[in-house]
Amino acid sequence: MKLPGQEEFEVSSACENVPTGELDSGPGSGPSPDGPSDTDRGELGVPKDPLLFIQLNELLGWPQALEWRETGRWVLFEEKLEVGAGRWSVPHVPTLALPSLQKLRSLLAEGLVLLDCPAQSFLELVEQVTRVESLSPELRGQLQALLLQRPQHLIQPIGTRPCQGSAHPREASHNEEAPLKAQHQNPLRRKLPPGAEAGVVLAGELGFLAQPLGAFVRLRDPVVLGPLTEVPLPSRFFCLLLGPSTLGKGYHEMGRAMAVLLSDPQFQWSVRRASNLRHLLAALDAFLEEVTVLPPGRWDPTARIAPPKCLPSQHKRLLSQLREVQGPSARHGALAEDRYGHWPQAPSPELQRTGRLFGGLVQDVRRKASWYPSDFLDALHPQCFSAVLYIYLATVTNAITFGGLLGEATNGAQGVLESFLGTAVAGAAFCLMAGQPLTILSSTGPVLVFERLLFSFSRDYSLDYLPFRLWVGIWVATFCLALVATEASVLVRYFTRFTEEGFCALISLIFIYDAVGKMLSLTSAYPIQSPGYPAYGCFCQYPDLGGNESEWTRTEPKDRNDISSMDLGLVNASLLPPPECARRGGQPRGPSCHAVPDIAFFSLLLFLTSFLLATALKHVKASRFFPSVVRRVLGDFSSVLAMLLGCGLDSFLGLATPKLTVPSEFKPTLPGRGWLVSPFGANPWWLSVAAALPALLLSVLIFMDQQITAVILNRAEYKLQKGAGFHLDLFCVALLMLLTSVLGLPWYVSATVISLAHMDSLRRESRACALGEPRSFLGIREQRLTGLVVFILTGTSIFLAPVLKFIPMPVLYGVFLYMGVAAISSIQFTKRVQLLLMPAKHQPDLLLLRHVPLSRVHLFTAIQLACLGLLWIIKSTPAAIIFPLMLLGLVGVRKALERVFSPQELLWLDELMPEKERSIPEKGLEPEYSLGGDSEDSELMYQPRAPEINISVN
Amino acid sequence: MKLPGQEEFEVSSACENVPTGELDSGPGSGPSPDGPSDTDRGELGVPKDPLLFIQLNELLGWPQALEWRETGRWVLFEEKLEVGAGRWSVPHVPTLALPSLQKLRSLLAEGLVLLDCPAQSFLELVEQVTRVESLSPELRGQLQALLLQRPQHLIQPIGTRPCQGSAHPREASHNEEAPLKAQHQNPLRRKLPPGAEAGVVLAGELGFLAQPLGAFVRLRDPVVLGPLTEVPLPSRFFCLLLGPSTLGKGYHEMGRAMAVLLSDPQFQWSVRRASNLRHLLAALDAFLEEVTVLPPGRWDPTARIAPPKCLPSQHKRLLSQLREVQGPSARHGALAEDRYGHWPQAPSPELQRTGRLFGGLVQDVRRKASWYPSDFLDALHPQCFSAVLYIYLATVTNAITFGGLLGEATNGAQGVLESFLGTAVAGAAFCLMAGQPLTILSSTGPVLVFERLLFSFSRDYSLDYLPFRLWVGIWVATFCLALVATEASVLVRYFTRFTEEGFCALISLIFIYDAVGKMLSLTSAYPIQSPGYPAYGCFCQYPDLGGNESEWTRTEPKDRNDISSMDLGLVNASLLPPPECARRGGQPRGPSCHAVPDIAFFSLLLFLTSFLLATALKHVKASRFFPSVVRRVLGDFSSVLAMLLGCGLDSFLGLATPKLTVPSEFKPTLPGRGWLVSPFGANPWWLSVAAALPALLLSVLIFMDQQITAVILNRAEYKLQKGAGFHLDLFCVALLMLLTSVLGLPWYVSATVISLAHMDSLRRESRACALGEPRSFLGIREQRLTGLVVFILTGTSIFLAPVLKFIPMPVLYGVFLYMGVAAISSIQFTKRVQLLLMPAKHQPDLLLLRHVPLSRVHLFTAIQLACLGLLWIIKSTPAAIIFPLMLLGLVGVRKALERVFSPQELLWLDELMPEKERSIPEKGLEPEYSLGGDSEDSELMYQPRAPEINISVN
Repeated sequence: MKLPGQEEFEVSSACENVPTGELDSGPGSGPSPDGPSDTDRGELGVPKDPLLFIQLNELLGWPQALEWRETGRWVLFEEKLEVGAGRWSVPHVPTLALPSLQKLRSLLAEGLVLLDCPAQSFLELVEQVTRVESLSPELRGQLQALLLQRPQHLIQPIGTRPCQGSAHPREASHNEEAPLKAQHQNPLRRKLPPGAEAGVVLAGELGFLAQPLGAFVRLRDPVVLGPLTEVPLPSRFFCLLLGPSTLGKGYHEMGRAMAVLLSDPQFQWSVRRASNLRHLLAALDAFLEEVTVLPPGRWDPTARIAPPKCLPSQHKRLLSQLREVQGPSARHGALAEDRYGHWPQAPSPELQRTGRLFGGLVQDVRRKASWYPSDFLDALHPQCFSAVLYIYLATVTNAITFGGLLGEATNGAQGVLESFLGTAVAGAAFCLMAGQPLTILSSTGPVLVFERLLFSFSRDYSLDYLPFRLWVGIWVATFCLALVATEASVLVRYFTRFTEEGFCALISLIFIYDAVGKMLSLTSAYPIQSPGYPAYGCFCQYPDLGGNESEWTRTEPKDRNDISSMDLGLVNASLLPPPECARRGGQPRGPSCHAVPDIAFFSLLLFLTSFLLATALKHVKASRFFPSVVRRVLGDFSSVLAMLLGCGLDSFLGLATPKLTVPSEFKPTLPGRGWLVSPFGANPWWLSVAAALPALLLSVLIFMDQQITAVILNRAEYKLQKGAGFHLDLFCVALLMLLTSVLGLPWYVSATVISLAHMDSLRRESRACALGEPRSFLGIREQRLTGLVVFILTGTSIFLAPVLKFIPMPVLYGVFLYMGVAAISSIQFTKRVQLLLMPAKHQPDLLLLRHVPLSRVHLFTAIQLACLGLLWIIKSTPAAIIFPLMLLGLVGVRKALERVFSPQELLWLDELMPEKERSIPEKGLEPEYSLGGDSEDSELMYQPRAPEINISVN
Repeated sequence: MKLPGQEEFEVSSACENVPTGELDSGPGSGPSPDGPSDTDRGELGVPKDPLLFIQLNELLGWPQALEWRETGRWVLFEEKLEVGAGRWSVPHVPTLALPSLQKLRSLLAEGLVLLDCPAQSFLELVEQVTRVESLSPELRGQLQALLLQRPQHLIQPIGTRPCQGSAHPREASHNEEAPLKAQHQNPLRRKLPPGAEAGVVLAGELGFLAQPLGAFVRLRDPVVLGPLTEVPLPSRFFCLLLGPSTLGKGYHEMGRAMAVLLSDPQFQWSVRRASNLRHLLAALDAFLEEVTVLPPGRWDPTARIAPPKCLPSQHKRLLSQLREVQGPSARHGALAEDRYGHWPQAPSPELQRTGRLFGGLVQDVRRKASWYPSDFLDALHPQCFSAVLYIYLATVTNAITFGGLLGEATNGAQGVLESFLGTAVAGAAFCLMAGQPLTILSSTGPVLVFERLLFSFSRDYSLDYLPFRLWVGIWVATFCLALVATEASVLVRYFTRFTEEGFCALISLIFIYDAVGKMLSLTSAYPIQSPGYPAYGCFCQYPDLGGNESEWTRTEPKDRNDISSMDLGLVNASLLPPPECARRGGQPRGPSCHAVPDIAFFSLLLFLTSFLLATALKHVKASRFFPSVVRRVLGDFSSVLAMLLGCGLDSFLGLATPKLTVPSEFKPTLPGRGWLVSPFGANPWWLSVAAALPALLLSVLIFMDQQITAVILNRAEYKLQKGAGFHLDLFCVALLMLLTSVLGLPWYVSATVISLAHMDSLRRESRACALGEPRSFLGIREQRLTGLVVFILTGTSIFLAPVLKFIPMPVLYGVFLYMGVAAISSIQFTKRVQLLLMPAKHQPDLLLLRHVPLSRVHLFTAIQLACLGLLWIIKSTPAAIIFPLMLLGLVGVRKALERVFSPQELLWLDELMPEKERSIPEKGLEPEYSLGGDSEDSELMYQPRAPEINISVN
């Protein structure tokens, strides 16, 4: 199941090397071992400057009605005042004209520059700024009065409610109190972090000036300049650009140029430290050196460019700056580390082999023990409440779906009740003991597939299923303990994307195939009555009245198809429906007695409805409609809502669709068994030994399923602070295998998607997200309490069971299909398969395609398809049960691929295996870079290693 | 029905003031009265320069293995060699670094500049270029040898087939013949127009040079420089940028900067006319003046920007250039004209009132008569064949759908056969006589709605429908002739977008409501058998055998609901299905005899399938999958394919779904009537006079429907050469009303969407569309033959009628729903309704929202919604038949809106009405521009007047 928040999470992770620390109060980028002490230092350990809010006030209405009006504002991106519409524009990347930058430069060079000006109020500041020789005293007075005039701000409630007429600009009146109130109530203020400073640019044409007047002021101590700024922030920078009328919009554009310069982190850094005009101009020149230039014939300068998903890294720019300040050798190491440290990734310390028996486990326990108290204290945050609600609903939905499917697959040996009970017990135990407490244990696709195979195997050989299963469980626990003892978890580094995708794709395909297959099997259970079909008749015959029963038997035809054309000659019959007939002691007779019309097509409709609705609701989240809260709820609860709608539709029409089987009281679904499974049952004793064989296969499956999930959850981009616990997790899974086998409950391992959703609901983010900046990701509230509460709630939900019998099976199949489709859509493999269908010129501009020849990409995809086909064939033969071994075989195939593809190609198509990782020297990629050089390099740096996170089916 | 090609058409029209003439061989932008004589002059009548293909060859492999390799190419946009992948990148807007432009400038300033160099071969050129003082003879020889070395080109078949391993670069080998062959077979060559020239930039680091070597050459006569360029084009420009090793990729970036400069139309224009170095540098400076600058901290310079949909207008740039050359006063008028001429649009000459009776008609006939011979000769183009096939299928689909629906609506007075016959006769006649021969006549939504109302009216008053209808037709023809005589068509200028959208929205909603309603009515015709329903039984009773018929009657219950629980006591019965039973002389008895199970849900499935499939196929066209031919076929024939699939599904399952009624032979659908309608029938004589009243309403409807379509088809963006014929068209419609009424055939007017599709399939486009340039639109093959052939084919398709009875009605309803949804989705009104549901910050960056306050936009939408609600209420009352008058009332409402909204607001929300258009002085919009000024202005100029063309339902 692909759960909510996924996409955002990925986007956030895709931007992980954006210098979040640069502009907001969160910790710096990358996991910082020092923790919160790092909050006031930015990238490369440079002391962090406060966020700057820049505002452009323009002088309009010359010559009759002069007034100042705020026409633009900047934090990261530009927002322009839409005069006609009375609203702020969408935040966009600011574009400038080169001449305006050059004119600004000369105006600054000739103008007044006050650095560390000691003014304490706007009045003082205005006096200082106007103390210019060129101005006559009279003009100076006029100018001062003009500057002190209150500017007009457009203060607009930030987009929360859609149609409240927000566009009537609440402009500052000339009343003295109202505007100050508006200034303080400006909702923008909440979006800016504490400590933010303002920069104000005043620009315009002023006819009475004989020559341009430019002034740039850096205040020693930031001062709130009265109503000058839209938000009552202390101002650090003040810039005045006035002059006589010119052609065009010279001063407007110069003002914008100044504001954009101030919003540039690099320029800001320099200008905060500049000690004279020369430094200021040098910073401007450094800015000009690095601008991107678009040719006028190919780019309309008035077009607005949407903010990019990832801001460019400021590493290099900062570094060159630092080098200027601290000398050339300073921090050179940092660059090299950044260039190769991020990619290929170094293996995490949890996956280093200790060489001692149970060494990894001991280390895991030791590491996690120190965090144990904080694992409960860190949960004291309101966010955890909503996380509990969300994950609880997801878990229960999962328990219902998998329980229902397991019940069908094992003919009642498992069921919804077992699923609830098992989820609650195993999940809660895992949350208390495991290494990675954010993991949500659940029935997963692979285990479901295996259990179905195991059941059909035991049925074929007439074995007593639950005792046999108990022994399988005992053996699996033993094998898993052996894997823990030998620190086998360090081998997960050999599970590359190739393996993960093969695993995920196979299971997803089985999901899709099963969902559709089960749906179609309903049409044979409830056949469609075509007009050619003999008849729709069904009598109710009373044998006791008249006693003509023999007559029926006598006239029974040899050929059943001919029954309709035969004279029945009944005398005691009625048209009662079969159940009613039986209740009255009659006997239903006729070809249609067991056929229920309309059920097949109605089931198909329910199936399609729940599938399409879940898919559509999922997409609502990324749409533009509704406030974000509504979008989030609809997207997050898409499967629950689809299920509810399906049930509603079903109960509205009241047709006899097949429903979920739920026992009417709290007892195992299989009639006649207790909660403890007897160790032998009707099986021979040697079966307990023979069970080791399937157990070996299941162990492989459990190991892969558990560890692939663990690897994904512990990826560096999630910035986990408390470390992973691969060995401890597997140890817990082994113990729980034993417990669930003894009680005859489903088996559990960590579920990827639901655990990712759990982490996503606990993410810590920076608040400042106004003005087009994506919220930056700070980390995750790592604790054990949310999971624990979720599973306790799941346990108490067993009392909901009587309600569950109203859920029609086709609805469950629909949700199941949705899970399969969502899972297979999320992997890169699917994108590459789609490439096969696209003409080269329509292919998206993937990094992959920039670096690997298309034929090689197709070859890799074709090999993956072939592996998948082979797995599918094995799965369809009687040898299906060995499929876990074949999945493991993918690791071998991947190893063999090293003979077919170059390391560079594999790096783009997959990722490198441990030995190869070391075998690529730093210069190993040079051949490609001899051409691509610098730009390719930065491309790599700005891209996450594997943006398309491989989602396993949970 | 929204037909294929629509979107593209709109996009093309949205770009109409892109200077297409600037770069390809088509006529200049805007309708040019001089016709093809204009082809070699560009914008503003400036002589047009040939297209320039620019290629960057880089020197790589210093110092060991020097080789030249083509690493970039430009026509409009940049394509970069993806070295790793061995393919050309996606075309993108080139981005440059400012320093590289400055370095290039100084290199050119110090280097060799040869303008009008007389070299006749590459050897001569190389000799001239290397004749520099700074080079020793030995170095010169070395350099010449190096320059003459054959460069490596990546010649790649342009994206046609997807998986042919096209990425194995067919690189030039050192064999002499092969590369020349590859050069000549380069598929890029076909994409470049004849007369195109090449520009070659050679750049790279050359260690043995002591100082940089720059040379810029303009050849007097373009020469094919051997294998230097990828395509064997004559080269006009040659630029050499070599120098000693530097840090970074200095020469690569300088080479790119040179190439981008050459690809700029403005720079190219100047440099073709430059007579010395000063001019060259001035052109470079002019380029720098106009570049767009993106700040380094907010834009990653390596990000690729997709080509914009519309290129910025080069008007102003060219103009300033011209002014320099021809003096400041030259062509100043052109700018003013361009600024206000495009918008608001002047009314077309066809809509000027002559003031004489039938004056407009006479003018129309006179104007069209001169084109009449060419209307047949212009059809001799292969494109017309495919247009015929496509429009024929669309027309037949339409005839089937509307015929089926009319048959249902009029209880058989109309039908599929009438629809075929009428379409063929009326369509063909119109094509031969009409003013706008590209128009496709069809049953349209409004007329269908009216006919249904008329029929139910006549049924309510027990009138003889067809004779009544005949009189209505006679009156309508009379009224329409009166409208032609009085030149009423000039009033269409009062039909603004407000009216068109109201018209379209109402009809679309009726379509949607009807489709869903008809579908649901099927579920009452074929009730769903829920378990509570008494029984499923149905006997076949033979009254002749045994003679116990009275027994049935006797036991018949008083309460029919109780029948099932009663003992029947039948002796002679069988379970034969009802039709078989009746055939054998029996009588079906029982509650379920007339209930057919499964039909309701299966019909619903068919309905949803055809709707969803048509919608999905429509979207395939805009997807990345499949070669464009396949995409086009799937998208264009979406309704036909959806219908075929629905029929296939239906016949596969063989259920007794309701099918289309088609008479088994060629006779009217209504039994017992001949092909001529009797003038009175059973109606009283005065009804022929009373019919004038509904005829008045229908005339209003026909006038609006016909003229709204005509206005849309004759829009300036379609660049029609032969003019419109509003009066003549209406005249033809009037005559055909008469004919179809007499024959009892459906009524016809021009159908918007199918006519637009017709025009789209006949569009003439420039061939050159490589390298990211959108194909530019040159005009439409205006002729009468394609339409004529389409309708002749439709006429012969009457013999297909026996096949049509296999079409299930739910499939038709599904296609009908699709038409309604597609039509309502295409109007701006729908977009504004969606805005109501979007939080302000998620709203798209529409121009509308930049200029009109959100509350005003919502108010306008609310008024439209209220009008629509009122229309809907009227439509639901017994007064429904007057709805055409109410539609006309929209014009009045629109007039009243002028009191509520300012002209500026109406300009953005709607368009201006004739008087108001004149009432806005050139300065009328100034208040807004006092701030927005220049940039807003250009926004307006680059945007089409009404990009969201209002599509009426056909």
